[in-house]
Amino acid sequence: MQSSLNHTIELPVRFNEADPLGIVWHGHYVRYFEDGREAFGHAYGLSYLDIYHQGYSVPVVKLQCDYKKSLRYGDTILIETVFTPSVAAKLVFHYKVYNAATREIVATGSTLQVFMDLKRNELQLINPTFFEVWKKKYHFDV
Amino acid sequence: MQSSLNHTIELPVRFNEADPLGIVWHGHYVRYFEDGREAFGHAYGLSYLDIYHQGYSVPVVKLQCDYKKSLRYGDTILIETVFTPSVAAKLVFHYKVYNAATREIVATGSTLQVFMDLKRNELQLINPTFFEVWKKKYHFDV
Amino acid sequence: MQSSLNHTIELPVRFNEADPLGIVWHGHYVRYFEDGREAFGHAYGLSYLDIYHQGYSVPVVKLQCDYKKSLRYGDTILIETVFTPSVAAKLVFHYKVYNAATREIVATGSTLQVFMDLKRNELQLINPTFFEVWKKKYHFDV
Amino acid sequence: MQSSLNHTIELPVRFNEADPLGIVWHGHYVRYFEDGREAFGHAYGLSYLDIYHQGYSVPVVKLQCDYKKSLRYGDTILIETVFTPSVAAKLVFHYKVYNAATREIVATGSTLQVFMDLKRNELQLINPTFFEVWKKKYHFDV
Repeated sequence: MQSSLNHTIELPVRFNEADPLGIVWHGHYVRYFEDGREAFGHAYGLSYLDIYHQGYSVPVVKLQCDYKKSLRYGDTILIETVFTPSVAAKLVFHYKVYNAATREIVATGSTLQVFMDLKRNELQLINPTFFEVWKKKYHFDV
Repeated sequence: MQSSLNHTIELPVRFNEADPLGIVWHGHYVRYFEDGREAFGHAYGLSYLDIYHQGYSVPVVKLQCDYKKSLRYGDTILIETVFTPSVAAKLVFHYKVYNAATREIVATGSTLQVFMDLKRNELQLINPTFFEVWKKKYHFDV
Repeated sequence: MQSSLNHTIELPVRFNEADPLGIVWHGHYVRYFEDGREAFGHAYGLSYLDIYHQGYSVPVVKLQCDYKKSLRYGDTILIETVFTPSVAAKLVFHYKVYNAATREIVATGSTLQVFMDLKRNELQLINPTFFEVWKKKYHFDV
Repeated sequence: MQSSLNHTIELPVRFNEADPLGIVWHGHYVRYFEDGREAFGHAYGLSYLDIYHQGYSVPVVKLQCDYKKSLRYGDTILIETVFTPSVAAKLVFHYKVYNAATREIVATGSTLQVFMDLKRNELQLINPTFFEVWKKKYHFDV
């Protein structure tokens, strides 16, 4: 049995992501998280498009981020995305952003997503079948 | 007969729009132009939504921008949007971005948009009727 | 004695803020919060530039957001920013984003900022004098 | 003698780059160009940071983009960046954005950058020495 699933990507900090203080503007971390989540999705068959083709969208309903260190233009970052299973019909991801050079943790965060049934345009209260199958495939027991 | 139609809005430069050199990143001017164009659209009944309700979208197919001066966080800008009529089935806008305090021109630019028929999902080669009516209303002779 | 200080602004949802599902991408709310915070700052003399001129920057070290409803292009929003005093050397803001037409709450959130001494380039552990003065001016007792 | 220098990168289209019509918002191409330019700079020693360490910044003073096709979330793009030498003290880049799957050209564009002397904070009217050396290294004759 598995308790979590991880995926890590490497990204450069873009010039246009740093602010007048020379550090990455805090709002850009939301994109870093989504970049990590989507890379996870492509690695494990759980991208937005995979989910969309099953008839669902997965809007983010809760987001949090703790900023520990600054990032500067020219830095390279690692984004580690961790899927933690949950009994409820939701997707929980945790993120760790590292400075690739120093291996220091720059930020941590999490997102909570729910399933929207695209045909009925309403919240899906129980786990969609495709997601149950997906969790089984990766040996999660909830 | 009218040869052009103008609309001007005032906007603050946001902290998150300035880059590590302290000046507004050049890519944000595309949003300034769209802000100006949409404000024009709301003033004269030619916003994206107005056009959408007529069955069209108006994708930008050409964009240019000349940067003359820098903008800094804390500056206030004026965006002047000018509609110039054209015989062809297209929308041409010119923009002037001013520093509100000094009245200096900070940037000039233009966009060219075409009409896409949303139902047929194809390029509209002749002027849509609603747009002919709109141009008449504002006394343009083309 | 005052227990909090409020400021509300009205903003249109921009076309470029909505995603392929037609709703505002969740990352843009971080900018909405900053827009609200800066408008608060301009109203009460606590903007980034005001603080900068006192020798400090105020990086965001914690952010959270709860998404309740969707926003679409064409919607108008109200952003209510609430300052709540704290004994520690930090800035705490809470945000409520409303759909202006329906008055429904679309999202709530908060940010925590610390003071960085710009000259010494280090975290300021006790409240800067200017901030003590500011809090007195608005009758906060902490 | 060399007449131009090329570099191509591959990038995924991000979910948050597509607009309510499902296609990439036109303003994001400015970032694509900068991504291409910076990757070119890293490949050939002409990145923003390389130039900065020589005492210069290179603000964009002119930008143009022609949009030929649409990009959708899920597409992969190729960005080809071409440096073309010029006698004057400026940087000229041309860009081609391709849909990686179809090899169709999605957009073309160009940017013009000038050299700002960071110490004197003024426009550099003749080619900086480091840039003359750089051009010689790559066998450009202007």
